[in-house]
Amino acid sequence: MIAEPRKPAECKPRPGGGRVTLVGAGPGDAELLTLKAVRVLQSADVILFDALVSDDVLDLARREAKRMLVGKRGGRPSCRQDDINALMIKLARQGRHVVRLKAGDPMIFGRAGEEIEQLEAHGIPVSIVPGITSASAMAASLGVSLTHRDRAHSVRFVTGHARNGALPDGFDTRGLADPETTLIVYMGGRTGPELARRLIAGGLPAETPVVAMSDISRADETRWAGTLCELASGTHASHHGRPVLIGIGRAFSACLAQQNQEEPARMAERTAAG
Amino acid sequence: MIAEPRKPAECKPRPGGGRVTLVGAGPGDAELLTLKAVRVLQSADVILFDALVSDDVLDLARREAKRMLVGKRGGRPSCRQDDINALMIKLARQGRHVVRLKAGDPMIFGRAGEEIEQLEAHGIPVSIVPGITSASAMAASLGVSLTHRDRAHSVRFVTGHARNGALPDGFDTRGLADPETTLIVYMGGRTGPELARRLIAGGLPAETPVVAMSDISRADETRWAGTLCELASGTHASHHGRPVLIGIGRAFSACLAQQNQEEPARMAERTAAG
Repeated sequence: MIAEPRKPAECKPRPGGGRVTLVGAGPGDAELLTLKAVRVLQSADVILFDALVSDDVLDLARREAKRMLVGKRGGRPSCRQDDINALMIKLARQGRHVVRLKAGDPMIFGRAGEEIEQLEAHGIPVSIVPGITSASAMAASLGVSLTHRDRAHSVRFVTGHARNGALPDGFDTRGLADPETTLIVYMGGRTGPELARRLIAGGLPAETPVVAMSDISRADETRWAGTLCELASGTHASHHGRPVLIGIGRAFSACLAQQNQEEPARMAERTAAG
Repeated sequence: MIAEPRKPAECKPRPGGGRVTLVGAGPGDAELLTLKAVRVLQSADVILFDALVSDDVLDLARREAKRMLVGKRGGRPSCRQDDINALMIKLARQGRHVVRLKAGDPMIFGRAGEEIEQLEAHGIPVSIVPGITSASAMAASLGVSLTHRDRAHSVRFVTGHARNGALPDGFDTRGLADPETTLIVYMGGRTGPELARRLIAGGLPAETPVVAMSDISRADETRWAGTLCELASGTHASHHGRPVLIGIGRAFSACLAQQNQEEPARMAERTAAG
């Protein structure tokens, strides 16, 4: 009945054999990397990084490591997932230490599961270094607890972006419309208004506070606060095509109150424009 | 409509004035601290730390900083929340940089909300450094994505421990019993079996995979894998009174398969004992 202690799963390099480490780069501020992520970046031969990984983070990697962008950036198309998998397998088989660097935490909407499965199926040792997920960075930046005992029993992360770019099929919108739960929508910029309409239809009050942020923890962080009703009508901020994290729930009521207090001019402008 | 960039919320010390920084210590492995957490720990005058914060993490703090345990450890009772708040306010008013060091991420079941409200009500500048939350560390340690596209649309964190130590009142168990969602239960050791019974009653299949872990990322990490049915009958591992994180859902099916394959002897032992 007693589970035995096990060593944390960190792959040891086989003599002559390569390996892959999936590393969470966190939300953008290079200071939000973990010490372990920096150590691993310093031992990399090749780094495959997503477009959202900031240059400040890459600056902490071993100078000699080869850097390869595998995400969409500057008009260049993103690599196909199959091609990324094949590249990692090829490099590891050449004996390299491949670091797969992903924004946020690789295990939360980072598609790490598919990469791990492929690597393991090909006998490549894989280990994972967790990262600060965007929701934690949002909470820290706003000074808002996601699970305040008086306001939210639970917190739930969903994606606003399924394979086809729309809201995932079979979304249990009534289950999501729970006023006791803080809801965090990853990649919610485009589908946010549709989700908000469904949540209101599912019973969540239209005046529920909402926050939308992009570039969290970076110098150019943007934030918008409003209500679920405003999100539904698409009056939330433009984020210049950057990925948007949306927070929905009573946890964010202080952000809404603060915005209403601080920014009557901007509110008026928004009303006029809307 | 365009939200303006704002500087990330990091409080600048007022001349002569103290301040408080809430810092996430992560799951235990000191290497899972962020660079920012280490920098802040190096500038602390006083550190108020919870019992779950590991000694390895405290070793990274400024040598001259005064360390004060405010949690339960070694039979000593834990400080009351009101006393912790009053102590932070007193120390900050004396001009100190107070670091409030919490296991995991302070904004996810860390009770940071109550501390921030009290500090702000007393005019004390507060800033927050996020930490790796236990769920991310669990996923990394197991090599399991919490949001695999084919197995889970969303991930939900709940607490198994309300103010009175029981499951929170008004738990929407039917909403929680969603096979498309990975469910993570913080502090679930004592109430796990009761929650499992309610989830089965709510419609979640009894053979849903479950993982229970303690001391995640530490040398003495323990893990147990089984089914929701086994959790309901209380046959999950003893964790020697350490806080337990429980993961429930199809995301963990590989852990269950692996345990069944690797540990037939232990399985037999458990069946005999049960």
